[in-house]
Amino acid sequence: MNLETIVFENNTLSIIDQKQLPGSLEYVILPDLETVVSSIKNLIVRGAPAIGIVAAYGLYIHARNLANDRSLNKSSFLQAGYALKSARPTAVNLSWAVEKMAQVYLDNQSNPTNEILTLLQKEALLIHQLDRKACDLIGKYGADLLPNTASVLTHCNAGILATGGRGTALSVIYSASKSKSVHVYVDETRPVGQGARLTYWELKQNNIPATLLTDNMSAMLMQQKKVDAVVVGADRIAKNGDTANKIGTYGLAVLAKHHGLPFYVAAPLSTFDVSLPDGTAIPIEYREKQEVLSFWGIDDSESYEVYNPAFDITPNSLISGIITDKGVLKAPYTETINHLFNNLF
Amino acid sequence: MNLETIVFENNTLSIIDQKQLPGSLEYVILPDLETVVSSIKNLIVRGAPAIGIVAAYGLYIHARNLANDRSLNKSSFLQAGYALKSARPTAVNLSWAVEKMAQVYLDNQSNPTNEILTLLQKEALLIHQLDRKACDLIGKYGADLLPNTASVLTHCNAGILATGGRGTALSVIYSASKSKSVHVYVDETRPVGQGARLTYWELKQNNIPATLLTDNMSAMLMQQKKVDAVVVGADRIAKNGDTANKIGTYGLAVLAKHHGLPFYVAAPLSTFDVSLPDGTAIPIEYREKQEVLSFWGIDDSESYEVYNPAFDITPNSLISGIITDKGVLKAPYTETINHLFNNLF
Repeated sequence: MNLETIVFENNTLSIIDQKQLPGSLEYVILPDLETVVSSIKNLIVRGAPAIGIVAAYGLYIHARNLANDRSLNKSSFLQAGYALKSARPTAVNLSWAVEKMAQVYLDNQSNPTNEILTLLQKEALLIHQLDRKACDLIGKYGADLLPNTASVLTHCNAGILATGGRGTALSVIYSASKSKSVHVYVDETRPVGQGARLTYWELKQNNIPATLLTDNMSAMLMQQKKVDAVVVGADRIAKNGDTANKIGTYGLAVLAKHHGLPFYVAAPLSTFDVSLPDGTAIPIEYREKQEVLSFWGIDDSESYEVYNPAFDITPNSLISGIITDKGVLKAPYTETINHLFNNLF
Repeated sequence: MNLETIVFENNTLSIIDQKQLPGSLEYVILPDLETVVSSIKNLIVRGAPAIGIVAAYGLYIHARNLANDRSLNKSSFLQAGYALKSARPTAVNLSWAVEKMAQVYLDNQSNPTNEILTLLQKEALLIHQLDRKACDLIGKYGADLLPNTASVLTHCNAGILATGGRGTALSVIYSASKSKSVHVYVDETRPVGQGARLTYWELKQNNIPATLLTDNMSAMLMQQKKVDAVVVGADRIAKNGDTANKIGTYGLAVLAKHHGLPFYVAAPLSTFDVSLPDGTAIPIEYREKQEVLSFWGIDDSESYEVYNPAFDITPNSLISGIITDKGVLKAPYTETINHLFNNLF
């Protein structure tokens, strides 16, 4: 299935409205900065690489709108970048993409407006294109790690719906499925249900056999030896390999260790934040209590106290390998990540 | 609050309809065997001790109905016992209570019908009364295990709503709260939400400060050192201490061990099944997929494969202590459980 989460055609940005899945597959057009920011905040688009790409296109569209009003300047452009960055704090791809776009603007701000717009559009398309390619490479490198008959547990959605391409964790599944027999166990991923609503649906569209379970069933699944490996995505990876990802990931890593199972993180280089020494420095987003309560038909939310972190931090010691578009990193991560980034830039 | 989950008054059995909580507190009358069986199957009443008590009253009511039709005999009575036992397979309190009632019937089957009915009623009342007392004792013994300022994580509902008294795990909380400062973290407990719907509500009724979280957040809570101990109930405990309890319990036990936290199981003696050598012999109930899917508004359940065990098994090695009405059992459990049961009977 040639599913595309983010479509940029005829200078128009459309994205799948992920709030409508799995009920219906609908695209919404994002014509301005406001709708881009709110679509990120409200999880109409989510997934670290995807929100980075949408933010990049969003900045181009906003620059075009500003130019039409003759109000495109350094201040108005950077202000929009700030609004996008603060839409969600944990995934670093968002600020990574915003900074790439800001650099293009700053490097060319004295050029004619049309030229600036052309360069911004080109940069957004490039960010999208590079992510598509990174997804394919992650799939290729990750597939080699799985046995010929593999039962893989995944959490949240790190697939087509989370990226500009075939996904990160799910790209590994898609690549492996070409030559191996792969079955996927999908954590429903409370509170928002990215596993139940998105991953299961996405795997079905791609004819990958899958079984859905609630998050608290993963331990029993491992105890029953029904899982060979855990593969998840990432929202931000610190310099030492500590990884922020969807809430519940850390618990899975502890469970995998207890059961002697490999635990892999799959992410493109844009998810690394080598400015942070370790996971304690990664900002964690806490979301509103209604996200948890509405499921249970609880209206009088004022009398409820709810703990609702959207992400958690998995320490590097629990990670068997980080599958990147440049190959699989192994411990000691501080060294292997340092080596990778020093050889790149 | 003097909340009673099971009320037997004027020869009438009423129970709280737990499907209506936390929206409204409603009692339903169970006038016959059919409604008793269906209320257990459909989770209108749940919790190992509670379903045992309801089954005992149910057998008395059924015997009375049979007697009115002049069809009370060994076969019709035992058949009803069988129907009750098979309503749910994992909690042993159900078959324990049914067998107690069957023994009373068998010991007195040649007596006049009125006498049999009186003895059956007396036995059901006794089962209820003993559970009430067991709950109080569990609370007393368990409270001593908590520090003076205690943050306790619990799973599912092992409270007033799960027993004939003050609960098992929650009785520990209620007792401790009299002299200590206790805060409870409540796992929502997917798929049925006994934590979100029942435990949080029950704790509020009893003015115990509580915070709700989704099951996959417990690991982060422990990582952040926000929890001092985990206390849960049990559905069946084998001869060696291996414990069946609500799905998710085993994962919490692994997480508690990883974080160096004590993990306590609280249960009355009626929850022990010393006929089983270990947890592998405990039958696990798997429930229908719609229980997981309906939450996500998924109607086309036929195309979904869902793993939905209602319970899991925690091996004795992960249990710091079993809080019973006869005191706190510690490892080696095969010895301490054997000692306890040999000195009792």
